[in-house]
Amino acid sequence: MKTKSVLTAALAFMSMSTFAQNTDGRIPAKGFAVFEANGHFQPYDFSRHAVGDNDIRIEILYAGICHSDLHHVFADWGAEEYPMVPGHEIAGRVVAVGKNVTRFKVGDYAGIGCIIGSCRHCDACEHDLEQYCEEGAVMTYHGIDRFNGDEHTQGGYSDTYVVAEDFAIKIPADAEIEKVAPLLCAGITSYSPIMQAGVKKGDKVGVAGFGGLGHMGVQYAVSLGAEVTVFDITDDKREDALRMGAVRYVNVNNPDELKGLDKQFDFILSTIPAKYEPVMYMKILKLDGQFGIVGLPAFRNMPSLSVADLVFQGHRKVFGSQIGGIKETQEMLDYSVAHDIYPEVEIIKADGAEIDKAYRNVLDGKVKFRYVIDMKTMK
Amino acid sequence: MKTKSVLTAALAFMSMSTFAQNTDGRIPAKGFAVFEANGHFQPYDFSRHAVGDNDIRIEILYAGICHSDLHHVFADWGAEEYPMVPGHEIAGRVVAVGKNVTRFKVGDYAGIGCIIGSCRHCDACEHDLEQYCEEGAVMTYHGIDRFNGDEHTQGGYSDTYVVAEDFAIKIPADAEIEKVAPLLCAGITSYSPIMQAGVKKGDKVGVAGFGGLGHMGVQYAVSLGAEVTVFDITDDKREDALRMGAVRYVNVNNPDELKGLDKQFDFILSTIPAKYEPVMYMKILKLDGQFGIVGLPAFRNMPSLSVADLVFQGHRKVFGSQIGGIKETQEMLDYSVAHDIYPEVEIIKADGAEIDKAYRNVLDGKVKFRYVIDMKTMK
Repeated sequence: MKTKSVLTAALAFMSMSTFAQNTDGRIPAKGFAVFEANGHFQPYDFSRHAVGDNDIRIEILYAGICHSDLHHVFADWGAEEYPMVPGHEIAGRVVAVGKNVTRFKVGDYAGIGCIIGSCRHCDACEHDLEQYCEEGAVMTYHGIDRFNGDEHTQGGYSDTYVVAEDFAIKIPADAEIEKVAPLLCAGITSYSPIMQAGVKKGDKVGVAGFGGLGHMGVQYAVSLGAEVTVFDITDDKREDALRMGAVRYVNVNNPDELKGLDKQFDFILSTIPAKYEPVMYMKILKLDGQFGIVGLPAFRNMPSLSVADLVFQGHRKVFGSQIGGIKETQEMLDYSVAHDIYPEVEIIKADGAEIDKAYRNVLDGKVKFRYVIDMKTMK
Repeated sequence: MKTKSVLTAALAFMSMSTFAQNTDGRIPAKGFAVFEANGHFQPYDFSRHAVGDNDIRIEILYAGICHSDLHHVFADWGAEEYPMVPGHEIAGRVVAVGKNVTRFKVGDYAGIGCIIGSCRHCDACEHDLEQYCEEGAVMTYHGIDRFNGDEHTQGGYSDTYVVAEDFAIKIPADAEIEKVAPLLCAGITSYSPIMQAGVKKGDKVGVAGFGGLGHMGVQYAVSLGAEVTVFDITDDKREDALRMGAVRYVNVNNPDELKGLDKQFDFILSTIPAKYEPVMYMKILKLDGQFGIVGLPAFRNMPSLSVADLVFQGHRKVFGSQIGGIKETQEMLDYSVAHDIYPEVEIIKADGAEIDKAYRNVLDGKVKFRYVIDMKTMK
């Protein structure tokens, strides 16, 4: 009896530890959540589903703060459920694998982006575009995971995550792991439209909005040999843009800087998360140029293009884009590591007040260029 | 003296005749104009510039009534100058050629579309996209012809037109000449976006708005082997659509008819000239499908696509298109005649009251599918 109670006590202790795993039951997790719209971040204990046969469990090392996290926390895109643990830029290490898992082993780096599930059989899924799954992709947080008992998903500002291996991204062992997390959203979201537009050496590319996504777009376009112009609403980032390889920086609040740009660009990527006039960018596209939009402002400030804008700027194509499929995300990650393309990050501690402060700085445009929370520092 | 006076009298008589030509002076012309916004059509005498060395003069046989004529007459797209002789769908016969003209001889059929001049040296002109000339294309009517003394251009509801041969379209001698005029605007405007989208055999194509442009778009798409669905707001045209080769007709006012169409189309062409919800058509595009917009409603009813519409329907491209360049217009005309593709026309007399009545019918959606004025009947 004594032996049994010691074992029980040991198991109880393990189940409370950070890396506890119990394939028969739920896994305790802790992180930082807001408990209402616009709320402050506070410690939050919750749980994740057990590691299934096709799942891996990740110890989260770093979690990026994406501008869309702010939109969700502020309910900019509609009502949300709380408590909410944001975070869909997750880099970590595999600490457990299900029996059918083949791509990962314990000790590997692994990443999670914006989605953790999809139907796998619709036209979108069959074309490796799971983010457009006709039955709905399962979001990494603020989602309902219909493949795991309809649990409400919680994100990466936490210590651990359990995910199907097919929705996890392999991170090469030589990656700069503290900078990888933002690739999983900011990276892929800017990489995919650049690939969709077929940007190539010598193209004139504009990147509008020079934040987390924009500074990744600049690096990808430069790496492809494009001549890159950056557009933003401040002078503060001019040197950064040139340092990252842009040939020109345009402060759009200074009309003089826009002169001579009409019909100059093969492709423009808009990552702008606030109110703006998209038609301005249409007008500086060459004929047969393309305008890719990934920035999604709050609904109350949503910009639009009229049919007249499109017809008067005819022979130019516009498209929106959401992140990327799992296959393209893996391709992006491998490309980024191979080309030494990383976000510029400011690493903060896993602390509610620190996250609150980071949010204020993102809102004020003071971040260069991505906050990453070091989840290992969580107390 | 007597001989001279007879000659003078003969010349004077000729200069007053319908086909008078005087290379030293202006050429009298007559047509139908409105004298104010929303005005009625009344006879109008005016003149055209002399036939220059690179010009041809056309006796106008037929002039199409385009929906955009109504927008100009009603000042839907902003203030206009009056008197205005509309008409940019012009089919006629060459009655005079300048000494440098090589592509036309007297007696040939010739056509004029929406534009009659451009700079010829900008990037757009060099890529055969004169309609997007960076210095401005000269419109066939309601334009200022900077290459001919800044004359105010008047359109095809008239007896004669003088145009640079480079902006005239050759019409094959075996064409059904009474049906050719609408090809020069309705034809090219629907043909060009279908070509830009690369529509091919087996593609699922939607044509939204089944009027003058739409019924041409259906014929082009069917001729390319596409499976065509027509969208309109009435049941009256269902039989016509099926007769022209469409496999399906959708009355969008009947929601049941829209069921099952989500993500079905490779390409949708919108020719809709009135208020509508473009996002509805985005939603029924396949991933990587394209939405081409040529219909331009009145400014007071201008539809738009928000950035959210574009991002949520990502991986789908939208573009506007204006008519086509001269080279593509010639290609379209040759293709149309070779494939026996013509508008369905109702020919009316060259009479102010007849034109007024035709306008009312166009507004009421009662035309099937294009009115053409027989200019030879002008008194």
